[in-house]
Amino acid sequence: MIYLDNNATTRIDSRVREAMLPFLGAEFANPSSPYSFARRATLAISRARGQVAALVGASPEEIHFASGGTEANNAALNHLLTTGETNTLALSAVEHASVRSFATHREKTGALLNWVNVNEHGALENADGPSAPLAMMWANNETGVIFPVVDFAGGRRIHSDAVQAAGKTPLNLATSGVETAAISAHKIHGPKGVGALFVRKGTKFEPYLIGGDQENGIRAGTENVAGIVGFGIAAELAVENLEKMQSEIRGLRDEMETRLLENISGSIITGRESPRIPNTSMLLIPGCETEALLALLDMEGICVSSGSACASGAHEPSHVLRAMGLPVANHATIRVSLSRFSTHDEIEALAVALPRAVRKLRNG
Amino acid sequence: MIYLDNNATTRIDSRVREAMLPFLGAEFANPSSPYSFARRATLAISRARGQVAALVGASPEEIHFASGGTEANNAALNHLLTTGETNTLALSAVEHASVRSFATHREKTGALLNWVNVNEHGALENADGPSAPLAMMWANNETGVIFPVVDFAGGRRIHSDAVQAAGKTPLNLATSGVETAAISAHKIHGPKGVGALFVRKGTKFEPYLIGGDQENGIRAGTENVAGIVGFGIAAELAVENLEKMQSEIRGLRDEMETRLLENISGSIITGRESPRIPNTSMLLIPGCETEALLALLDMEGICVSSGSACASGAHEPSHVLRAMGLPVANHATIRVSLSRFSTHDEIEALAVALPRAVRKLRNG
Repeated sequence: MIYLDNNATTRIDSRVREAMLPFLGAEFANPSSPYSFARRATLAISRARGQVAALVGASPEEIHFASGGTEANNAALNHLLTTGETNTLALSAVEHASVRSFATHREKTGALLNWVNVNEHGALENADGPSAPLAMMWANNETGVIFPVVDFAGGRRIHSDAVQAAGKTPLNLATSGVETAAISAHKIHGPKGVGALFVRKGTKFEPYLIGGDQENGIRAGTENVAGIVGFGIAAELAVENLEKMQSEIRGLRDEMETRLLENISGSIITGRESPRIPNTSMLLIPGCETEALLALLDMEGICVSSGSACASGAHEPSHVLRAMGLPVANHATIRVSLSRFSTHDEIEALAVALPRAVRKLRNG
Repeated sequence: MIYLDNNATTRIDSRVREAMLPFLGAEFANPSSPYSFARRATLAISRARGQVAALVGASPEEIHFASGGTEANNAALNHLLTTGETNTLALSAVEHASVRSFATHREKTGALLNWVNVNEHGALENADGPSAPLAMMWANNETGVIFPVVDFAGGRRIHSDAVQAAGKTPLNLATSGVETAAISAHKIHGPKGVGALFVRKGTKFEPYLIGGDQENGIRAGTENVAGIVGFGIAAELAVENLEKMQSEIRGLRDEMETRLLENISGSIITGRESPRIPNTSMLLIPGCETEALLALLDMEGICVSSGSACASGAHEPSHVLRAMGLPVANHATIRVSLSRFSTHDEIEALAVALPRAVRKLRNG
């Protein structure tokens, strides 16, 4: 199998799994329990909090574990919409479904949405204007385009979905000016079902999951100790591998793009003129259909996608590409996303198989 | 270590862990992805859905995986409060924090709460009255008392927190008349960070986590595949062991209670006259302090608690016991909760150590 869909999810690093195993075994305590057995779980969570904080440039007390990026994004938007002086939320037109759909859901109960456009390169346009709180992702999951979150953060309340940015581009949330940010373990070779919400120090946060006093009152629910421990190690490994992502993996990605552009006539890489995370390529390929192309690649054991896995069932043209004004209706859209485990051989295999599949479909 | 705090959390069954491991390893696909590799994850979730449905007497399509009991309880209450004709919610005075605190939080934005009292045996009083939706737990986490949820379900919308009931008492949610119910994996020897929300067929559910189309649109977010698979096996094992819980473990618990009542003067078992789940004992012990008692037991390697782990940090008298009108102020409160792994030797050790600790403190 050649797995090149790392923006959908990643292979768990074996060191992550090893670190989790004790907490799926003998170390099963509920961290909130009052005996010494439980303190080992508490300490393990504390260690993981530091590891995740280091990945995103935050203080440990600014990191709050949650069940994933969706919950963290939902919680942050709920916070912005319920604690401000306005019922308006500005958001980019290319946000992930867990931001976009949450916002449109809140429209039904009175929230006003102020959509920020993107241009054909995927860069944001006219995000200033009224100073409503802004949801702006750090990097787009489909195109990999990095948005200038920091430039908008002066004096404005910002939530940033940093799920696709963490581990791929340096983050310093503490100095970024954002009020909240979301990250997810399973995008950085950690387990599914665990993420984190950054909440800037001093913020009076409105919790979304409510119950026990876990996570300093910001997120209730018995902690997923094994998942959190795995997330911690995954974060530590992501820090160690950031330079590799920025250089070696970016090099592989760029080489792959050159090969594909040469060998697939009329193909386009979206957002290529913009700053991008180093692992992502979104190709537009005229003259064939996305699903047929994915099926041919699947038969060769190559896993890529058409865009967000969260919307893969929908078979609709990507809202991201539509927002960018790209000609999605007559093109196949193929997202290729690498990880630190990606190899030259894998890129080579794709660079042969994808053009061949395109030729086959075009010659139909 | 003698672990007798199984209402806080349970040891993961080794068969659960074994079933999870492939999904923490080679089977890392995002189930929403479009290639055949991902279908194995989809199938694994589907199998788990059937296993969990069998535990609670539901159809597979009525089971929706979530991050745990807290999220499932929050989501169900949000649903009841936003989809009905009334802004009133009735709830028992002894609900778990994830029900109680969520409800009181919603009071701030206009929800009206109608508290249902309990008597000294832990049974509910006057839950009829206005026919507002009702949140009534299936079994109480501190006392183990089972509430007559089914008796109230005629024509009334009910959410039942069944987290402590599943695997300990037979459940048939399909015929119970409840609209929604919550369960959690880590209370039945499954992993932390995964639970399920039962939503009765035909219910137009208002989702709480919003984003991708996972879980039939009822709960967004990349599925915690390993956790869900573990939950499925845990549910299957809970079905297999229900008879053991009802007979052998109940026998152990009852024997323990007899021993403790004989050897600790003035002690009371709360709710003993009421129907209870078979694993739980809540003791009231006059003349000593809870924390001192827990510390002495901890020194002997015995893990028990004062009540809900979610409130263990709080060091306040249990809201459950206060609601029952019990004399908590002058008593230590010790909750002992068994599992299918509990043994006669463990009960014996507690039956010696606890009276000894009480004597030490009383003479201290």
